[in-house]
Amino acid sequence: MDQQNLTHPEGPQGSRPAVAPVPVARPPALDPPVVGMVGAGQLARMTAAAAIGLGVRFRVLAAAADDSAAQVCADAPVGDYRSADDLLAFAAGCDVVTFDHEHVPEHALQALDTAGHVVWPPPAALRLTQDKLAMRRRLGELGVPVPWAVPVASQADVEAIADRTDWPVVLKAVSGGYDGRGVWVCRSYTEIAEVMAYGVPLLAEEFVPFERELAVLIARSPSGHGAAYPVVQTIQGDGICHEVLAPAPDLADHVAEDAIRLGLRLARDLNVIGLLAVELFETPGGLLVNELAMRPHNSGHWTIEGARTSQFEQHLRAVLNLPLGAPTLTAPCVALANVLGADDPDLQGKLGHVLAADTALKIQLYGKPVRPGRKVGHVTALGDDMTSARERATRAARYLATGSEEP
Amino acid sequence: MDQQNLTHPEGPQGSRPAVAPVPVARPPALDPPVVGMVGAGQLARMTAAAAIGLGVRFRVLAAAADDSAAQVCADAPVGDYRSADDLLAFAAGCDVVTFDHEHVPEHALQALDTAGHVVWPPPAALRLTQDKLAMRRRLGELGVPVPWAVPVASQADVEAIADRTDWPVVLKAVSGGYDGRGVWVCRSYTEIAEVMAYGVPLLAEEFVPFERELAVLIARSPSGHGAAYPVVQTIQGDGICHEVLAPAPDLADHVAEDAIRLGLRLARDLNVIGLLAVELFETPGGLLVNELAMRPHNSGHWTIEGARTSQFEQHLRAVLNLPLGAPTLTAPCVALANVLGADDPDLQGKLGHVLAADTALKIQLYGKPVRPGRKVGHVTALGDDMTSARERATRAARYLATGSEEP
Repeated sequence: MDQQNLTHPEGPQGSRPAVAPVPVARPPALDPPVVGMVGAGQLARMTAAAAIGLGVRFRVLAAAADDSAAQVCADAPVGDYRSADDLLAFAAGCDVVTFDHEHVPEHALQALDTAGHVVWPPPAALRLTQDKLAMRRRLGELGVPVPWAVPVASQADVEAIADRTDWPVVLKAVSGGYDGRGVWVCRSYTEIAEVMAYGVPLLAEEFVPFERELAVLIARSPSGHGAAYPVVQTIQGDGICHEVLAPAPDLADHVAEDAIRLGLRLARDLNVIGLLAVELFETPGGLLVNELAMRPHNSGHWTIEGARTSQFEQHLRAVLNLPLGAPTLTAPCVALANVLGADDPDLQGKLGHVLAADTALKIQLYGKPVRPGRKVGHVTALGDDMTSARERATRAARYLATGSEEP
Repeated sequence: MDQQNLTHPEGPQGSRPAVAPVPVARPPALDPPVVGMVGAGQLARMTAAAAIGLGVRFRVLAAAADDSAAQVCADAPVGDYRSADDLLAFAAGCDVVTFDHEHVPEHALQALDTAGHVVWPPPAALRLTQDKLAMRRRLGELGVPVPWAVPVASQADVEAIADRTDWPVVLKAVSGGYDGRGVWVCRSYTEIAEVMAYGVPLLAEEFVPFERELAVLIARSPSGHGAAYPVVQTIQGDGICHEVLAPAPDLADHVAEDAIRLGLRLARDLNVIGLLAVELFETPGGLLVNELAMRPHNSGHWTIEGARTSQFEQHLRAVLNLPLGAPTLTAPCVALANVLGADDPDLQGKLGHVLAADTALKIQLYGKPVRPGRKVGHVTALGDDMTSARERATRAARYLATGSEEP
């Protein structure tokens, strides 16, 4: 649309009878793009903050009006992400649709695709994160090292595996798991039976005696440009991320390079657009891919203050096909600790104590009611020394959760 | 409110006949505080981003539904800041009311006060920023060095001053000016007459042949705690801020200390709660106070990435009486350049070029329609060297505004 049309919506002067100009609030071509994110959890909430800076309009599809991101977004319709109708209504008027979780079902993704919406990551890529078996199969085809995994349909299947390999046996829900839900490390026939009783499709997976867990975060744009953040170490408990250390301490250069090369290659080969988080096991034999996510990821929250471009801004840039930002560190060491809900539901009441104790800490609270074990916020500490940064972050996160600095 | 009451809103078990518990969506004591900001310009918009992290509920009083901050706030009622009724309706449900501009009239501030709302800065302090004469008088009482200023009522008054002192004569609107509006540097009787013709109350002010302009930004909380950001240099043109350099290059330590001491003293003596921005003239004879603002300020936008605590987060912390955050620099040199609207109204179309040219730049776009000379965004560059940081920021800002890198 050229200037002439912008300033004269009714057409050039004199080319037709004079009519009242159509009132246009803002010339359409100048409107900023609208990014719609399906899901309104903390990932969408933190993306909303990044959208403000970029001048991008941001819309979230919330499950409820008080969802974490819906609390802070001007444009937060409530709908069901499992409903194709709700998704299509949400996508109308969005320039790009993206996701803060991987739970949108196949038929609904298909409906968006068929209707011609721009959906990043592409449904074909996103589907891999919904089906751990399909993902393992695909990674196997690509020659990517992964723990072995086989579908299991019965107690007998699993027992046979336990007898053939060794205990423990790891069982995973084929789809739908996150934050430790859907992952069970079984050490007895009884525990296997308990998991089988859930009646969900399962796979049995190799128990990997890893040295530690690492993660690499990649952004990729539709133009094929990629950017990789420094490799981080994640510290998990009960399948939930407790801490993230950036960069991963004492990581051999060649392992860091391997991880980044692997991440960039996966982003390309799986045709990911947006973010790709690759969770890795570091083992004496090399790196194994544990899980993939195609969205902002807990292992990247440290980037809000710890990297020149936050993962949330980076995801927006990627899905808008804007040039990717520098993923470089802003401090030698960045430690992040999640605030995991405990018995005390009052976070705000403890916030002042934590801020007073350490004026340089950065805190993100997600606006979510506290439930035991639930991620309700995180704390980031930047410094020259990982040991002290880590202690500052974990102490504050513990205090916010429990009201005590004791572990 | 203790746990017992939280979980048993109807009172302890057995103390009265069993009744159905009152449904409470969330226990009130656990609700995050609600900060209401009157005005929905870019200052409120950037404060909204900071509120997301702190888990604070943020409401803005917008003049129109598409105001800069209203575009990004979940809670953005439209109303008239000059109407006491609108302000009272807005303040209902807010824990604290604060401002993104100084234009709320006396009677409306009074109404908030009378109704018992917590208003920061206190109306008595805010009023000083609405009346340049009252401010000058108050600063004089405090022994703070300011340019001389006198009220003028007629052409003859001003001509007498011009004859007695020298040209140019600076005329300022007693109230209501900002961004160069309301400030006139007159070099002839004719120019004086043009300004007199506006018919607004005026003061004539000493023309200060300053060496450069500096600014110091202070935060002060109701507890009386204060925090000072490093002193910056501002570069103005036509009364509009073009650039901010943090810290002010080659500033003598004793001048920096004077500026910070002066700022902290003014915050205390004027009983400012929240932010106080002090614009200063650096002269051979020392510092003179030019203007004060009691809100987030253009001279502090660099703090979003350039300080450990942004001015927007700091303002929220201050008005909520939370401990103030570290105001320390995150890089040796931070340069900010404002994007001042030019002929080309399309910012988004140029964003990609700027981001591609310099992947480490940080850009904030305000969501405002472009008008010539209007602040529509800013660019921040961090680095080890001010000359290159400044060049990166100004080049990008110029390109965003004009589509050309040439000045």
